[in-house]
Amino acid sequence: MKIYTETLTFQTPNKREVLNITPQVKAALEKSALHDGIILVTVLHSNAAVIVNDDEPGLLEDLQTWLDQLAPERPDYHHRGRFESNAAVHLQSLMLHHQALVPFTEARLDLGPWQFVLFVELDGQRPKRVVIKVMGE
Amino acid sequence: MKIYTETLTFQTPNKREVLNITPQVKAALEKSALHDGIILVTVLHSNAAVIVNDDEPGLLEDLQTWLDQLAPERPDYHHRGRFESNAAVHLQSLMLHHQALVPFTEARLDLGPWQFVLFVELDGQRPKRVVIKVMGE
Amino acid sequence: MKIYTETLTFQTPNKREVLNITPQVKAALEKSALHDGIILVTVLHSNAAVIVNDDEPGLLEDLQTWLDQLAPERPDYHHRGRFESNAAVHLQSLMLHHQALVPFTEARLDLGPWQFVLFVELDGQRPKRVVIKVMGE
Repeated sequence: MKIYTETLTFQTPNKREVLNITPQVKAALEKSALHDGIILVTVLHSNAAVIVNDDEPGLLEDLQTWLDQLAPERPDYHHRGRFESNAAVHLQSLMLHHQALVPFTEARLDLGPWQFVLFVELDGQRPKRVVIKVMGE
Repeated sequence: MKIYTETLTFQTPNKREVLNITPQVKAALEKSALHDGIILVTVLHSNAAVIVNDDEPGLLEDLQTWLDQLAPERPDYHHRGRFESNAAVHLQSLMLHHQALVPFTEARLDLGPWQFVLFVELDGQRPKRVVIKVMGE
Repeated sequence: MKIYTETLTFQTPNKREVLNITPQVKAALEKSALHDGIILVTVLHSNAAVIVNDDEPGLLEDLQTWLDQLAPERPDYHHRGRFESNAAVHLQSLMLHHQALVPFTEARLDLGPWQFVLFVELDGQRPKRVVIKVMGE
């Protein structure tokens, strides 16, 4: 087995933003020169997420409304920040999950036609690190 | 490391349906002839999910009611379909996650007695592809 | 590739409890003597979860309130227990996910400063098994 690791840093101008990082995942696969295996995409923060879904702008708007409905900002959370994000953002990150795996076969990502790897920034305007680890043959 | 990949296609008669695909995952493990490693089970669509949980019929009914409560169909979503599913289905898929890993040791799946690999179809009546990738020794 | 597997058993005094098991994950990595790869941490039960997030006590309190809001105990679930947990606990486990991956590089866990591996017991007071599988070079 061979392993290729890359750490990317994203800093979004907005507090909330969704970035399609499929090109970066593809680029990591190409640099690895591997043809069969899995790619782990994981964010090193509890106030962002990594998902695989469609990147249609209307859907991403619906996603954000939905996050605010199910895990709204509230004045009565107990979380004390440690210079970190408020509790709502942590719960939204848990809902979406902070990582995803992309399998690949014959040097191509196994993604459906409407599937993209999306970095979901939930509390941006500061640098966030994402680890991409390609493992396989 | 050795890798064995299989792609299965499911087409359910109903829009929503939960299939216990543990037998297919076991069969892939047997065909791989591996004895130690992990199996990635991932669906190539954003309108279905793969979970590991109990397959008791009452629970699966509760699961569907719950999905409709937390991510209901609504007339005011912004997602424009691209011939794809409505936004509620995408959000339900995100809640459940589109993939799961099953570790295996001594050629047996590491699953608890009430754990099964379930394919959760959220917008069926059309073919859906699931990739099973067995990796290990 | 080398693989090192460990199965831990936790029995919490309370029905609900969050345990920071990062030290156990680190210990497994050290025993594996591997320096580059991924660690799968997965619970073999449908009434517990494994997450990666901050372990700040106020946040963990917020997390539990939130789980009870989104998947409350109710008298009208259809799930019949099989000596197992009620449906609310299963749904909470699905929300949080029963597994997480931790990548590691140069023999160190790739976790952010506010990220910890947390075992979330949702229906405790009985033994629960967690598989830790370290894979890599």
